[in-house]
Amino acid sequence: MNNFNFYSPTYFVFGKGREHESGKLVKQFKGSKVLIHYGSGSVVKSGLLDRVKTSLKDAGVYFTELGGVVPNPRSGLVYQGIEVCKKEHIDFILAVGGGSAIDSAKAIAVGALYDGDFWDFYTGKRIERALPVATILTLTAAGSEGSTGSVITHEKGMLKRSTNSDLIRPVFSILNPELTCTLPAYQTAAGAADMIAHVMERYFTNTKEVEITDRVGEAVIKTIIKETPKALKNPNDYEARANLMWAGMLAHNDICGVGREQDWATHMMEHELSGLYDVTHGAGLAVMFPAWMKYVMHHDVARFAQFAVRVWDCEMDFQHPENTALQGIERYEQFMRSIGMPVRFAELGAKAEDIPVLLKTMGLGNRTLGNFVKLTEDDIRKIYELAV
Amino acid sequence: MNNFNFYSPTYFVFGKGREHESGKLVKQFKGSKVLIHYGSGSVVKSGLLDRVKTSLKDAGVYFTELGGVVPNPRSGLVYQGIEVCKKEHIDFILAVGGGSAIDSAKAIAVGALYDGDFWDFYTGKRIERALPVATILTLTAAGSEGSTGSVITHEKGMLKRSTNSDLIRPVFSILNPELTCTLPAYQTAAGAADMIAHVMERYFTNTKEVEITDRVGEAVIKTIIKETPKALKNPNDYEARANLMWAGMLAHNDICGVGREQDWATHMMEHELSGLYDVTHGAGLAVMFPAWMKYVMHHDVARFAQFAVRVWDCEMDFQHPENTALQGIERYEQFMRSIGMPVRFAELGAKAEDIPVLLKTMGLGNRTLGNFVKLTEDDIRKIYELAV
Repeated sequence: MNNFNFYSPTYFVFGKGREHESGKLVKQFKGSKVLIHYGSGSVVKSGLLDRVKTSLKDAGVYFTELGGVVPNPRSGLVYQGIEVCKKEHIDFILAVGGGSAIDSAKAIAVGALYDGDFWDFYTGKRIERALPVATILTLTAAGSEGSTGSVITHEKGMLKRSTNSDLIRPVFSILNPELTCTLPAYQTAAGAADMIAHVMERYFTNTKEVEITDRVGEAVIKTIIKETPKALKNPNDYEARANLMWAGMLAHNDICGVGREQDWATHMMEHELSGLYDVTHGAGLAVMFPAWMKYVMHHDVARFAQFAVRVWDCEMDFQHPENTALQGIERYEQFMRSIGMPVRFAELGAKAEDIPVLLKTMGLGNRTLGNFVKLTEDDIRKIYELAV
Repeated sequence: MNNFNFYSPTYFVFGKGREHESGKLVKQFKGSKVLIHYGSGSVVKSGLLDRVKTSLKDAGVYFTELGGVVPNPRSGLVYQGIEVCKKEHIDFILAVGGGSAIDSAKAIAVGALYDGDFWDFYTGKRIERALPVATILTLTAAGSEGSTGSVITHEKGMLKRSTNSDLIRPVFSILNPELTCTLPAYQTAAGAADMIAHVMERYFTNTKEVEITDRVGEAVIKTIIKETPKALKNPNDYEARANLMWAGMLAHNDICGVGREQDWATHMMEHELSGLYDVTHGAGLAVMFPAWMKYVMHHDVARFAQFAVRVWDCEMDFQHPENTALQGIERYEQFMRSIGMPVRFAELGAKAEDIPVLLKTMGLGNRTLGNFVKLTEDDIRKIYELAV
């Protein structure tokens, strides 16, 4: 097991009606001038935003608001949010929404205390200060409610880039599964694909003998496999929504990754896809993962066989473990299809002829991508081709 | 799923040689006058204490020390520690050792900022202030390095009582698995029994459909079942020690308990045992759990069958699930015997004729114990008898 630090200080407030505690929590975490940041009209229409505002008012907390975050959140709104924060001396950002609203809020939190361009932090600069961010989650997928990460797409060149810092981990996150019961089936399924991918990026590793992290990751994926079809069949199944919501947090607060090397090549390949086509991140991952798995499985057949047996309940073929490994990949694809996810380029609206564009935007040059297998640009081309 | 809050803000610093970072970490967490609190001479003999002191000196942190914590830590040393803290204006407690040293440190941390008797907090009073506590763990068992709990035995009447508060969660915990390689086999095994028990107290619940918490708990126990025999066979197996060390934290920071009612009757019954006979807590749990399981299994046979199949790899007897449930209990006993743990009173040095004494010290009266099944004093007598 590799040495590691694990730090997940977010205060999670989970369950029915917990958004009514927003005001009390903001005060507890020393917020006095709040920017409420959200996305589409759905948080307005559902009445959630009103409940949050009422809670803040009741607690005597000043707030202003900025809506309009789009999926694959853009730099434009981030710049706008930073301006608001500076002008109004905002000291606390409250994101209401899914991963996009949260990631956008994190970017604003970083930019608000910085004189230069916030994009510096998405292109390598280390974050040293940020306003506190809290979240009220409405979509189970990105895990941003408990993570150190943020992904933003810059409108100049549609570059999708990420940053990481303990300073942008939410100080508190309100997770009310009821808020996810109105999600469309496609978003529910794409969320499941995203969560599973967060574990898989950490599961395929060259670090041996980290049984505890393997087992916890398997636990999270198996839960998602069991609960997603229930949520799709009956969108108001609170228990299914609750299990998925907590699994989504666990999938990405790094408890499934500690003690070992992680991969993340598939996420990077997907970022190019969703940068170019503006597809849902989880759907893009459902397309890229089978291709990546098929390409790299011979690097460690035993690991893929373990994944197949323990996660997908495949029967171990002791004489031919590679058959079991392959069967696990097939089961992954079957599951994704069964919940309505695409698994090939065409189903996503992506085109084989754009592969050179994807490679060019990625701009890997002579560097490599990922850790499980260090992929060259040529490897990545072949993986994109496998996904066609 | 029940509403819950989950808060685990401890900064975990895991891996080889990490104790050399003690001084840097104490400073980072604002400690300037430190009480180092430890138990037996082993941390002295091993050189660990010297390494910690050197690290504190190098960081320019003042410290004083108080050793002598015994297993099932006593009130006497706590009173002594509180006096030292008050006299020397200590602002940070660093526990070096296992659960006993940590629990004793937590008690001192609470008492140091209180004018009355610290025991008030172990008999119902709510903790409102405490000095920050950090830990350097040398024994994988109690999970106190990431938990809100502390258990102390008062010398007056040998009463073993506990308290809980987010204020006594360690601010940081250094977990170096190397430090556990010198543990005697019995302590390693008792640690495993304790960790498994921490999950089981949370696993047997009347709250339905909390799949994610079930799965995570199963992951932790399965890891302990796999890794403990490896650590016993080769005490220097770093990977086994590392997996056990992290599993022990996960078993008790409540990630295995969120979203549902928990039980804890078996811990309470064991506290009377170890209060009276001063036996190792984990060994006492290995004796009490089979008795408790046999007594309550008919309350929810399906749950015990799930435990048997998923954790102990029993074959499901679909026609007679109670057979599977029973087989799971048998496998638990077999495992405990295989690692050298007692599973009956006699092996522990406990006596059937003391059962009335155990019941009297517990002093349950007309109240009940536990949640899975609410046990009366008569139930508890029968469970103690089953353990004979």
